[in-house]
Amino acid sequence: MSLSHTMDDILLREESDGAVYLTLNRPDKFNTLSQAMLIALQRELDTLAGDPAVRCVVIAGKGRGFCAGHDLREMRANPDKAYYQELFRSCSRVMQSIVALPVPVIARVQGMATAAGCQLVASCDLAIAGRSASFAVSGINVGLFCSTPAVALSRSISPKRAFDMLVSGNFIDADTAFDWGLLSAVTDDDNLDAAVADKVDQILGKSPAAVRFGKSMFHSQRQMVLADAYDYAGNVMAENMMSPDAGEGIDAFLGKRRPVWEQPGQ
Amino acid sequence: MSLSHTMDDILLREESDGAVYLTLNRPDKFNTLSQAMLIALQRELDTLAGDPAVRCVVIAGKGRGFCAGHDLREMRANPDKAYYQELFRSCSRVMQSIVALPVPVIARVQGMATAAGCQLVASCDLAIAGRSASFAVSGINVGLFCSTPAVALSRSISPKRAFDMLVSGNFIDADTAFDWGLLSAVTDDDNLDAAVADKVDQILGKSPAAVRFGKSMFHSQRQMVLADAYDYAGNVMAENMMSPDAGEGIDAFLGKRRPVWEQPGQ
Amino acid sequence: MSLSHTMDDILLREESDGAVYLTLNRPDKFNTLSQAMLIALQRELDTLAGDPAVRCVVIAGKGRGFCAGHDLREMRANPDKAYYQELFRSCSRVMQSIVALPVPVIARVQGMATAAGCQLVASCDLAIAGRSASFAVSGINVGLFCSTPAVALSRSISPKRAFDMLVSGNFIDADTAFDWGLLSAVTDDDNLDAAVADKVDQILGKSPAAVRFGKSMFHSQRQMVLADAYDYAGNVMAENMMSPDAGEGIDAFLGKRRPVWEQPGQ
Repeated sequence: MSLSHTMDDILLREESDGAVYLTLNRPDKFNTLSQAMLIALQRELDTLAGDPAVRCVVIAGKGRGFCAGHDLREMRANPDKAYYQELFRSCSRVMQSIVALPVPVIARVQGMATAAGCQLVASCDLAIAGRSASFAVSGINVGLFCSTPAVALSRSISPKRAFDMLVSGNFIDADTAFDWGLLSAVTDDDNLDAAVADKVDQILGKSPAAVRFGKSMFHSQRQMVLADAYDYAGNVMAENMMSPDAGEGIDAFLGKRRPVWEQPGQ
Repeated sequence: MSLSHTMDDILLREESDGAVYLTLNRPDKFNTLSQAMLIALQRELDTLAGDPAVRCVVIAGKGRGFCAGHDLREMRANPDKAYYQELFRSCSRVMQSIVALPVPVIARVQGMATAAGCQLVASCDLAIAGRSASFAVSGINVGLFCSTPAVALSRSISPKRAFDMLVSGNFIDADTAFDWGLLSAVTDDDNLDAAVADKVDQILGKSPAAVRFGKSMFHSQRQMVLADAYDYAGNVMAENMMSPDAGEGIDAFLGKRRPVWEQPGQ
Repeated sequence: MSLSHTMDDILLREESDGAVYLTLNRPDKFNTLSQAMLIALQRELDTLAGDPAVRCVVIAGKGRGFCAGHDLREMRANPDKAYYQELFRSCSRVMQSIVALPVPVIARVQGMATAAGCQLVASCDLAIAGRSASFAVSGINVGLFCSTPAVALSRSISPKRAFDMLVSGNFIDADTAFDWGLLSAVTDDDNLDAAVADKVDQILGKSPAAVRFGKSMFHSQRQMVLADAYDYAGNVMAENMMSPDAGEGIDAFLGKRRPVWEQPGQ
């Protein structure tokens, strides 16, 4: 495994066989999404978006908690509407860059994921948490309704559950988050890394091209009416069928052998 | 607790510290949404929408059941298409006024909630039911598919479950309704009032301004594509940050003290 | 029960009292959606759409499995982009014809439902499966992301669950599919036919006109913003109220007798 750091150490980047691990590294601040953290995340996501060798991204947080959302002290030090607009715009851009990234993004969640930290979980394609993890959109407790987190949360779980979390600020535990569809998996705490590694391995075992065909298509088509979604998805799938990997995959399946995928960027 | 009645007694209105309780009061008719009831509800909702002192609304029904939907006898007495169009328009306006109300609306459900009564549950932001409550969109049993209820129900629970309820008219119990996300909470029957009061207290304990910023934002953004939703929610949240309560809330949090919210209209 | 075959025997058609059973009949090929099968399905769906006597449709598969999706061998024999575009277009048209059919469509699922076979389940209004059934969108395993199945699946279950199925190709069992809302019912394998027959009987017991008012309305309104959905659904419901069956149904209900529905096309 090659290991590289970003310029500043608030965001760690490790890479292994096409899987990139981004780790929020302000454990003493519960990995809050400060301006610096958002800039670091955006920079990494922009780089990853243009890197054909990347096949899967994991977002994790160092220390006892995953991410506590915005840095309230920093926000309070800048009481200016234009500043806040820019702050939420840059945070929203990070979240949308996760959705738009051409490869799957997995949230690896331990401890608390609150406010924009919970939004980060909702924004990832997949999310795996240890059983002791907990989730809240708790801005309401400091007089700040979690409006941008609501965008991601209300597209991830049913509306009454989302609204109850948003207006009460109450925590839900990991089993509830899994039951509601906010998580794609929940596991024992001491099995969390193994569960994430297993999911990464599943994705790395697939055709890189096929995964990329699917990732952006999945989110784009959700915003279309049915007929448009089918037109679009059908064209993507026809292109996917013309890729060498689809031919190889089907031939291997029919020939009862393991397929050998093209490895772009290597 | 101050107590006031509407002009007619079919809809009771109680108020306590910014929480308004509207109670459908035709228990002998299972609180059907007659024309008179719809007019009374609309009038109250319009008044509440303009009252800055209101912070939370509870909709309840008197007697053994919550609400049995439209008044079939009254409908049958007016066999005229324009009449029905106006009836469903006025009912739909009530439901949309609940969604558009600037403060959270909680359905307090005991007994049966059927047809437009089930729609009322689906239309509220939160819904708490006693365990013996039951839910159906049963118009199909009298030759009338619950089309307008389907609008609310299909935005509240998954499509196969909603369609099955609509085409079969079958009842689901409260635990199932909770499991499917139609309810935000289910509780023992004799704990229903306490559970509702507890949720009201949770909301009254928050910043009135922040709750208002969030309520309308939540429903509006759900109808937008992702990028528009984030633009809109980010601007709402920036405005929310400029409100005195956000400053107070964050300062209180950082100072480890209880916040003191502004109390508009008092 | 009258029994008729389609021109070719790959799709069986049985009819009984307004319920039409379409059975995919290539059990040796796991009922794959070959070109011929798609053409046969489209032809039947077009005929059913214009037949006022039809009241309910069941889609089933012969043999050990429900449907294994596209015919990979046939696809591989035609490595041409225009061919694939037309193939996915014709498959998407079948799925949308199910949604657009003026009467409810029930999937009867035994064994495996994979790729476009799983999409077929997601596209039906209702789906009932035996407990040993299993579901996957497994194209990813052959280098072909299930893009058009994703359109139906992501409109049926929550996004993280849908994406996990699509990117992993993993199977879920019938109880999980029911828990997630992909199925409207799950039952013991040896009770599957009885459970389907019971649901068919429920639908046949309703007003044919009312069921038709509801079916297309349900799916159309889901694609509209709330205000438009209510306008549309209210007008449909007013028309429904003007139908003889609504009058009969309400009169029967008020008179405590069984309603007698109009039987169109008989």
